[in-house]
Amino acid sequence: MRIAQIAPLFESVPPKLYGGTERIVSYLTEELVRLGHDIVLFASGDSETMAELVSCSPAALRLDPEVEDPIPHYMVMLERVRRRAAGFDILHFHIDNLHYPLVRAMARPSVTTMHGRMDLPDYPPLFAEFDEMPLVSISDGQRRGVDANWVATVHHGIPKSLYRLGSGDGGYLAFLGRISPEKGVDRAIEIAKQAGIPLKIAAKIGVGDRPYFETTIAPLLDQPHVDFIGEIGEDRKQDFLGRAAAMLFPIDWPEPFGLVMIESMACGTPVIGWPCGSVPEVIDDGITGFIVDDIESAVDAVAMTASLDRHLVRRRFEKRFTAARMATDYLKVYEALTEERGGGKLPAQALLSLHAA
Amino acid sequence: MRIAQIAPLFESVPPKLYGGTERIVSYLTEELVRLGHDIVLFASGDSETMAELVSCSPAALRLDPEVEDPIPHYMVMLERVRRRAAGFDILHFHIDNLHYPLVRAMARPSVTTMHGRMDLPDYPPLFAEFDEMPLVSISDGQRRGVDANWVATVHHGIPKSLYRLGSGDGGYLAFLGRISPEKGVDRAIEIAKQAGIPLKIAAKIGVGDRPYFETTIAPLLDQPHVDFIGEIGEDRKQDFLGRAAAMLFPIDWPEPFGLVMIESMACGTPVIGWPCGSVPEVIDDGITGFIVDDIESAVDAVAMTASLDRHLVRRRFEKRFTAARMATDYLKVYEALTEERGGGKLPAQALLSLHAA
Repeated sequence: MRIAQIAPLFESVPPKLYGGTERIVSYLTEELVRLGHDIVLFASGDSETMAELVSCSPAALRLDPEVEDPIPHYMVMLERVRRRAAGFDILHFHIDNLHYPLVRAMARPSVTTMHGRMDLPDYPPLFAEFDEMPLVSISDGQRRGVDANWVATVHHGIPKSLYRLGSGDGGYLAFLGRISPEKGVDRAIEIAKQAGIPLKIAAKIGVGDRPYFETTIAPLLDQPHVDFIGEIGEDRKQDFLGRAAAMLFPIDWPEPFGLVMIESMACGTPVIGWPCGSVPEVIDDGITGFIVDDIESAVDAVAMTASLDRHLVRRRFEKRFTAARMATDYLKVYEALTEERGGGKLPAQALLSLHAA
Repeated sequence: MRIAQIAPLFESVPPKLYGGTERIVSYLTEELVRLGHDIVLFASGDSETMAELVSCSPAALRLDPEVEDPIPHYMVMLERVRRRAAGFDILHFHIDNLHYPLVRAMARPSVTTMHGRMDLPDYPPLFAEFDEMPLVSISDGQRRGVDANWVATVHHGIPKSLYRLGSGDGGYLAFLGRISPEKGVDRAIEIAKQAGIPLKIAAKIGVGDRPYFETTIAPLLDQPHVDFIGEIGEDRKQDFLGRAAAMLFPIDWPEPFGLVMIESMACGTPVIGWPCGSVPEVIDDGITGFIVDDIESAVDAVAMTASLDRHLVRRRFEKRFTAARMATDYLKVYEALTEERGGGKLPAQALLSLHAA
């Protein structure tokens, strides 16, 4: 198929540092290219891809100190998409909702993956107006209670070989994420304490979360069982996650997906998570980890992780959360949407490549 | 003519409190209706107009505590404009650049008034891409050095009867605006001190400007010649401006227009301003005020304001800065843009109403 992938401009694809959405767009794009599809990636000019790259800003907006307003750059991007739109079987957007009126005006097949939290009060009027716009959720939890034209849930995936089975013999629990109230690092510290196991915390402190860190978290870090190692890059994640006995994911917000859970599983490391947002869909309770809803159950779960088979955790990851699985799911979505719209009117070329997928 | 006015959604049209752009859109809309044109105003649902109102959000976004992200509301607005676009001779946008790709896709005559500062680094790539998009500047100063398809400068105007000639006998200088470094209230305090005349300051303190106020301005307010009266509403402006001997506009930034200057002139009160942005275009030096570039010259100018004829200041306002003059200017712009595009293909109805204008 001829597919346009339209990525956020905040980070490059893949991102140099953070940027969950841009990572996923990168994995999906590269996988679709490998599967033989004709992919054009609309993204910041410092992106790297095997697909054709259409640069829509010289560099990622978040890293460019010159950028004050992202909107003009997105308008340039939309125009570049518009100009080439007729050449694609489907346009796959990852930029929230900036493109909805334009997509209606162009009347081209499209699908939009919503990567963020969907419970904003600003969304109901949007979806009431654009009630035919095909949307993909990244978890069923994400779309719960949100009335829109959801056509599928496609869980994220990461390349199979990005991580490998780790030993789990580090004798510690891992926490990986931002320091913010909804990520629950204070819960993680308490769980490790009661379980009598060291906790390693690899975490970024955002500017906005600095006061929370100073007042609430910093005083907890002095305890002998806590090791705060700060922010870590991709290159250190294998070791950090792979050697952990378990990863704690004690969140207190409707996490739309939670990539770190599947990164942990890719290392064979079980995840102990609270049942918010996507968590009950991502963790196979009793196989790839445990779903708990209070500290006491979490402490019990830590004790039980030794009984889980890390090979099985890794195999479950390979079955459910690889980029290849994600690409296959999206191809089904593209196929359904183009057949639905085009009927017999799709060019033979597109149909052929679609059935070959 | 059949004209769509597309206003920002942040405030209602007209605004309940602040909102320079929304005020201007209101004045223009009402004036065009009075001139017999067929106007549809796309704006927040709490707007009030003699035109047909298309509500694009239940209430002004800035006053709605539920609103977290303005973009979805603007997407709803753009869709409502799109659906009716074919019914207008021209679409007049006041929403920066969110509509550019859609306007190209619709291929309808449009014009966009840029209401803000144009020297953002984000603009050059936008205008390089959309180099045919017809733009109106609100001062020549605003567009200086910015390469885009500027089709006209249309200075703002306010209704002739909004203010009346004031006595100017209050024995004070006036400062009206926000407390922020670029508005120069510290300069105003120093000018009044050296001129030996009281200064009344009517000013809003924005959340972001609070630290600047506390550290830099508050200590200056204790002086006996300074009277800080806080924020004032529309109903108090006539008295505040009309009784002032002169208004000080000692700005230190490229003000795109500066409505308060023409409000002052409407009361017959001369303006003493620094030559930034629009100021040299708005003040007729030696007639409606003085253009100065240091404190000393400003102090001299204060002494000279007594020699200016307040009736003449008011007359100059009536000639140059009324809403009627602004509407006439915009009609010329609409006419030029529709003739240019439509050639002989405009419907007779539109041509007739256009020539009657």
